[in-house]
Amino acid sequence: MEEKERFVTKITPKSEDYSRWYTEVVRKAELADYTTVKGCMVIRPYGYAIWEEVQQRLDRRIKETGHQNAYFPLLIPESLLKKEAEHVEGFAPQVAWVTQGGDEQLEERLAIRPTSEAIICSMYSKWVRSWRDLPILINQWVNIVRWEKVTRLFLRTTEFLWQEGHTVHASEKEAEEETLRILEVYRDSVENDLAIPVIAGLKTEREKFAGALSTYTIEALMTDGKALQAGTSHNLGQHFAKAFDIRFEDKDQKMKYAWQTSWGATTRLIGAIIMTHGDDSGLILPPKVAPIQLIIIPIPATGWQEKVLPLVKELERRLKEIGLRVQADLREVYSPGWKFSEWEMRGVPIRLEIGMREVVEKRVVAARRDTGDRMLLPLDNLEKEIPPLLTEIQNNLFNRAKKFLQDNTHTIDDYDEFKEIINTRGGFIYSFWCGDPECEQKIKEETAATIRCLPLESDHASGSCIRCGRPSDQRVYFGKAY
Amino acid sequence: MEEKERFVTKITPKSEDYSRWYTEVVRKAELADYTTVKGCMVIRPYGYAIWEEVQQRLDRRIKETGHQNAYFPLLIPESLLKKEAEHVEGFAPQVAWVTQGGDEQLEERLAIRPTSEAIICSMYSKWVRSWRDLPILINQWVNIVRWEKVTRLFLRTTEFLWQEGHTVHASEKEAEEETLRILEVYRDSVENDLAIPVIAGLKTEREKFAGALSTYTIEALMTDGKALQAGTSHNLGQHFAKAFDIRFEDKDQKMKYAWQTSWGATTRLIGAIIMTHGDDSGLILPPKVAPIQLIIIPIPATGWQEKVLPLVKELERRLKEIGLRVQADLREVYSPGWKFSEWEMRGVPIRLEIGMREVVEKRVVAARRDTGDRMLLPLDNLEKEIPPLLTEIQNNLFNRAKKFLQDNTHTIDDYDEFKEIINTRGGFIYSFWCGDPECEQKIKEETAATIRCLPLESDHASGSCIRCGRPSDQRVYFGKAY
Repeated sequence: MEEKERFVTKITPKSEDYSRWYTEVVRKAELADYTTVKGCMVIRPYGYAIWEEVQQRLDRRIKETGHQNAYFPLLIPESLLKKEAEHVEGFAPQVAWVTQGGDEQLEERLAIRPTSEAIICSMYSKWVRSWRDLPILINQWVNIVRWEKVTRLFLRTTEFLWQEGHTVHASEKEAEEETLRILEVYRDSVENDLAIPVIAGLKTEREKFAGALSTYTIEALMTDGKALQAGTSHNLGQHFAKAFDIRFEDKDQKMKYAWQTSWGATTRLIGAIIMTHGDDSGLILPPKVAPIQLIIIPIPATGWQEKVLPLVKELERRLKEIGLRVQADLREVYSPGWKFSEWEMRGVPIRLEIGMREVVEKRVVAARRDTGDRMLLPLDNLEKEIPPLLTEIQNNLFNRAKKFLQDNTHTIDDYDEFKEIINTRGGFIYSFWCGDPECEQKIKEETAATIRCLPLESDHASGSCIRCGRPSDQRVYFGKAY
Repeated sequence: MEEKERFVTKITPKSEDYSRWYTEVVRKAELADYTTVKGCMVIRPYGYAIWEEVQQRLDRRIKETGHQNAYFPLLIPESLLKKEAEHVEGFAPQVAWVTQGGDEQLEERLAIRPTSEAIICSMYSKWVRSWRDLPILINQWVNIVRWEKVTRLFLRTTEFLWQEGHTVHASEKEAEEETLRILEVYRDSVENDLAIPVIAGLKTEREKFAGALSTYTIEALMTDGKALQAGTSHNLGQHFAKAFDIRFEDKDQKMKYAWQTSWGATTRLIGAIIMTHGDDSGLILPPKVAPIQLIIIPIPATGWQEKVLPLVKELERRLKEIGLRVQADLREVYSPGWKFSEWEMRGVPIRLEIGMREVVEKRVVAARRDTGDRMLLPLDNLEKEIPPLLTEIQNNLFNRAKKFLQDNTHTIDDYDEFKEIINTRGGFIYSFWCGDPECEQKIKEETAATIRCLPLESDHASGSCIRCGRPSDQRVYFGKAY
């Protein structure tokens, strides 16, 4: 009976078809669903609840570093988008255009924001007058539309949710400091809240944000060996300030162009959580961002409603009181076995099982989602036992992923070996590169691998470019990417 | 000197030009600004911080009544929008249409959501199969676009932010209960958090939501005598269930169409706060939704940095520790008088002033924004004094607004008097109405007043229609509305 019920949520194993496994986890855990609108998904309540946890934690960090939230318009007149040449060139192919409002044909097309530099800079040019107005440190949480040909739930959809920060500074130095400060906010947030280890670095000219001076990135490694860009922070230099005329009177009374940054992280982070931690039973959520940290499942037997049920409710209350996100699954139409599978699929970090025996023995069975370990915990002491157990799960997930990243980062000096690894095991390949964009392009054509980033701290080695053999003084990270 | 500085933030008095006063408060308090995009505004950090407070409190109430958040697509194919006839007729004139994606011309136009019933119902028809799937209780916080001809900051803009709840139920009774439950959530939230008294009631057929069976509303009264709809809750009956084929197998194993509700509250609530509480010095914020509840302003004099400054910082820390939102204004380029005016303009409920004398006497000057009263509070006891003072301010704002609403609600039985009051003092007019939509329409044409609502609880009076004289057994609320 239990086996038959388990079948309900059975999914394709990761090893058999990773891509199908991913989609099935997303859909069976009810994180998201396809819609009739091409390339657009609905984020279902459980998926959105994860996003709310991720968002609240990142929002707190953004505010703690002095930023404020605001809201800028969804629609951007084409003329604004065109002001910065590289920017429009980069984004125009992906823009959804509004051409009609009610019955009227618009004189000028309006872009649905593919990113908001243009509209925000048009306001900053009004707001910035003096050095006293600087820095401007603004962030917004909004929806974004980019017309995508091939889409994938959470990872690449026509519409997605993100935060985008847009700052203005009086000096080049401050802008660079801000860019790196935010990169560290992202690293800290992704590593410590999402338990996903990353490599931080600089994008190449080819891979940087359209219109930026330089782009910094954090890159994660999924369990299929593919890289995933988990957040980017751009130093915009004075490119947009010049295009949008953002000038200020400095302390020396001279008019100067301002220095800017922008930075973003998106709902694709949910995809990264799935692909970093998930297994063949479904999702595994890091406790810090799990909407439900503990699920309590009563085991019915004769007399359970008199003896087990009150204890389940008491436990739920006690654990809520110490600030945990806990839920009791009291549905009577499903068996315990069915519930075990469902909450495993949904990645809840700890399951507590309580039956008649547990009532008598004053203890409870706790099952860890990350390791599958089951243990007996004394009922009286749960408030003391559970929080460190959640911390241990959080740490275990991070360490496991960190080990995977290390085991799958290959220092390679031979191009054939490079190609072989990229086409079989995947992972990050750490190789010398000459710095020439043409060589970078050829490597992409020949191997489908791109330069994920130049590491922030060079190891001061020297060698020869993995492809062309010219001298190089820096290894960079290559990988196939989502 | 101080007078000259005060002039910086001086605004048009309410009595002189209400509409200009409103716009000047919005812009000088830096709540919002116009943009180059027709009818679209930017919500600036201080305005957005108010929205975050309003939103968090309403979100908590929505979750406490069993609802979960989710996210549905921004774009709605025209064919979906057309499925419910009344709905499309009501919204089509206001739709912004996407017709191009990247370089391609779309085969079908996509509407930017003017409201999300169509896209959400298309998903519900997939998700709902059995009575076990019900109720579905989902809410989303999103942006909305409605092509408006005449716009006004916060009150009517082409794009605005809101929450929209969309629920599915097994019975007519449950749907009606949900509609009224949410109306009560809105009333409670607006009256207790925003300190804005409202009248709750039913919309007429003419004024109801396009596609609904019935619409309930809460109506507030602004200090210029105009009504403002502050939240609506719709019983959709089976209209959308039939149009979108949302059916479930009931306990009796028969397939039945589901019953639905939808409900929304928007960023126009910020406009309601301004126009309910504000005065000629600017905004007045109810403490519960004020991003800054206390502003501490040091009064410089010789030696203030040694003696006053440490005390200001200590006070800020102490008040933060007890959970208050407090900020110290330590800017040296502005005088205390300039700061007083600025924080009055921004509506901060309590200002604390600390100079050398206060340090010596171990007390602080506290000034209330709502009454202008200044009092001396002993420094040692601030943790005890401030919270009840904030409660008193919150209550005072509500009571003052409640008195205004009562004083400006007129029970009228004579049409000439009706017209005179509507054209002079404004306010709510409580009069008999025959129930005929034609009579309602004529009253609108002749007086510009609309029926704001039929009160939830009838007073069982009987009389004759204010316009046509036909018998009526219910008074209704009329008013000119935003």
